[in-house]
Amino acid sequence: MENLERIRIKDIARMAEVSVGTVDRVLHGRHGVSESSRQRVEEILKKLNYRPNVYASALASNKKYSIIYILPEHEEGSYWSYIEKGIRQASESFTDFHLSIHPLYYNPYTPDSFDACIQEVMAQNPDGVIISPTLPEKTFSLVGELNKAETPYVFIDSNLPELKPLAFFGQNSIQSGYFAGSILMLLAHKGNQVVIFRHIYGGKSEQSNQQQFREKGFRDYMSQHHPDYQILELDIDMKLSTEEKYALLDTFFATHPHINRGITFNSQVGIFGEYIENRNIHNFHLLGYDLLERNVKCLKNGSVHFLIAQQPIRLGHDSVEELSRHLIFKKEVRPLNFMPIDLLTADNVDYYPDILGK
Amino acid sequence: MENLERIRIKDIARMAEVSVGTVDRVLHGRHGVSESSRQRVEEILKKLNYRPNVYASALASNKKYSIIYILPEHEEGSYWSYIEKGIRQASESFTDFHLSIHPLYYNPYTPDSFDACIQEVMAQNPDGVIISPTLPEKTFSLVGELNKAETPYVFIDSNLPELKPLAFFGQNSIQSGYFAGSILMLLAHKGNQVVIFRHIYGGKSEQSNQQQFREKGFRDYMSQHHPDYQILELDIDMKLSTEEKYALLDTFFATHPHINRGITFNSQVGIFGEYIENRNIHNFHLLGYDLLERNVKCLKNGSVHFLIAQQPIRLGHDSVEELSRHLIFKKEVRPLNFMPIDLLTADNVDYYPDILGK
Repeated sequence: MENLERIRIKDIARMAEVSVGTVDRVLHGRHGVSESSRQRVEEILKKLNYRPNVYASALASNKKYSIIYILPEHEEGSYWSYIEKGIRQASESFTDFHLSIHPLYYNPYTPDSFDACIQEVMAQNPDGVIISPTLPEKTFSLVGELNKAETPYVFIDSNLPELKPLAFFGQNSIQSGYFAGSILMLLAHKGNQVVIFRHIYGGKSEQSNQQQFREKGFRDYMSQHHPDYQILELDIDMKLSTEEKYALLDTFFATHPHINRGITFNSQVGIFGEYIENRNIHNFHLLGYDLLERNVKCLKNGSVHFLIAQQPIRLGHDSVEELSRHLIFKKEVRPLNFMPIDLLTADNVDYYPDILGK
Repeated sequence: MENLERIRIKDIARMAEVSVGTVDRVLHGRHGVSESSRQRVEEILKKLNYRPNVYASALASNKKYSIIYILPEHEEGSYWSYIEKGIRQASESFTDFHLSIHPLYYNPYTPDSFDACIQEVMAQNPDGVIISPTLPEKTFSLVGELNKAETPYVFIDSNLPELKPLAFFGQNSIQSGYFAGSILMLLAHKGNQVVIFRHIYGGKSEQSNQQQFREKGFRDYMSQHHPDYQILELDIDMKLSTEEKYALLDTFFATHPHINRGITFNSQVGIFGEYIENRNIHNFHLLGYDLLERNVKCLKNGSVHFLIAQQPIRLGHDSVEELSRHLIFKKEVRPLNFMPIDLLTADNVDYYPDILGK
C-alpha cells in the first residue's frame, strides 16, 4: 500500500534535530525559534510537502469569521441568483469553522443605493468582502474604506484590476466575445450583416463593463476575420413592454430582411429568442449568454442557436471557498481565477446541470 | 447577521424533550432508544436540517480506509494519466481521515493481465474499488468476487450498468458522438463525405466500448440530419510506424480528393493533425477528443478544428471523493455522474487549465 498517511510532528522534529515544541512554533508562526532552527524545520516541511492538520486545529479554534457579499438586486432564476446559490453552498461547508456570511444588495439602476451597502459594511466590520463591482465609482469608495480597515476583498463577475482585489473570479470577457464571434461565424450562411442586440435602461446604456468588453472582443474577431461584415446595433430599452420591444424588432427585421445572425452580450437573449419563435422567423441564428431556464428553453426550441455560459454557481462557490480558506487557513489566493468559456447547444446542454444547480 | 452557526446537541435534546445521550445515540445509529424518542429526535433533526459535525467525528476516529483503483497501463500526458492525477488529488484531501489509496494496472492489449489485478484486489481486501471497465469479461469476474466480499465498486470512463456499480463517472458517450456530429457539420463547407479515423491494434479493432458508443451517436446524428452523406472509414493500426501510417493516409486522401471533414473518437487525433500539418493539407476539418498536450498543439496550429473534452481530472477526483464520502461519512452516492461535453477551439481552450491540471 502506498503510504499517504500523515507525517507526525515528532518525525519532523527528529529529522530537523529540534524539539517538538520548536516544530509547533514554526508551524503556527510563533516567536521564540532561532533562525537556523526555523530554516531547518521549514526545509524539512517543504521536502515532506507537510500539511498540518488544518481541519482539526481550525475546528478546535473558537475564532469566528464573517464575510459580507454585495450583489445587485435580482430575481430568482437570474444570473445573479446562481452566483448567490454558489456563495451559499460554499459557505455551508465552512459552518463547522464558525464562518457566517451576510448579503447586501444594491439597485444597479440607482447607483446611490450602493452607499447604504458601504455604510453597512463599515458598521459590521467583516473579515472579508465579496463584491460584484458593476458600479466602478461606488466600488472605488468602498475599497478606500476597506483598505483603511485592512479588510480583504475579492471581485466577482467583472474585474477592476486597478483597485487591486485580493482575487478576481470570472470570465475573461474580451476573449469570451472573441470566441462568441468565431462560433457565430461558423454557421454555414451567406450574408454580410450581423446585429448586436443591446439592452439599455431608461434611455441610458445599461451595459456593464463585462458586456462592453465582450462586445470589444467580438468586434476584434470580426475586424480580423470578417472585415467585410457590417455590424448593426439595435438598442432595446428594458423599460418597454413586450409589445413595444416586438414593434422595434419588427421594424428592424423589415429594414434588414437578409440579416441572418444576431448576438447579445448579456443574459437577456431569451427575449429575442421568444420574439423569433413568436414571429416564426427562420434562417436567423442567435448567440447569447448564460444558462437561464428561459434561455435554455429557447436553445431547445431552436430559436437560440448557441449559449455561452460561465458557471455562476462555481463562480460564487469558488469566491467564498478561496476567501474563507485565506481567512481561516491563511491559504494564499491565486489573483486571477478565470471561469471556462463553455459553449452550449441543444445537444450538450443537458450535461451542465451544475450550472443551473440541478 | 444570518445565523449559520451549528445547532448544538443539547438544543436538540431540549426541543425533543429527551436526554443529550439519547440524541447522541440516534445520531450515531446506536441501540437503546425508544421508538417514540427516536422519532421525535429525527423529526427535530429533519426540521433543523442538522448536520452532525462529520469532520470532527471522522477525524477523531481511528478507522483506516483503503481504496484500490484499476486503470490501463498508460504514459504520462495520456488521457488516463489525467484521470490518475484527479484520483491522487482527491485522495490527498482524505489523508486526515486515514484513507490510503493504491493503484493497479493492466495491459489493455493482453486482457489476461487483468487477472493479476483481480488476485491482488482479493488479497488486499480493500474497502472500495474504482475500475475502468474497458475489458467487460474481466470486469465481470472481478465484480463477482467484489460482490461476494460486499465491497463497493464504482466504474469510471465507460459504464457497464448491468454489473450494477455503486456509481458511474464519465460522459454519456452516445450523446457525445451525436453532439460531435452536429458541431462538425456546422462548418461552412460543401461536400457529401466525412471520414471516421479508427485505431486498431495488431489487426484487431481496439475500439473501447466508449468509442463504439460515440460512433453510434455520430451515425445517429448523420442519418437524422445528413442522410445524403457518405461516411467513410479508415482503420489505422497503432503498431505501424509513423511513415506507414502516413502512407495509408496519403493513399486515402489521393482516393478521396474532395473530402473535407474527419472525426476520431479517441484521444489520438494528434496523429492525424500532425499528418495534416506535415502534408500541408488545407480545407480539411478535423474533430477529435481529449485535451492532451499534443492535441491542443494541433488545435492551436489549426490542424484540428475542434476538441471535445470530458474533464478526466474531475472524473478521477469525483470518483474518489464520492466513494470516500460514502465509506467515511456514509454519504449516499448518485448512481450516474455524467461529465460535461466540453467543446474547445483554439479560442477558448486556454480557459480549461483544470482539464490539463495547470
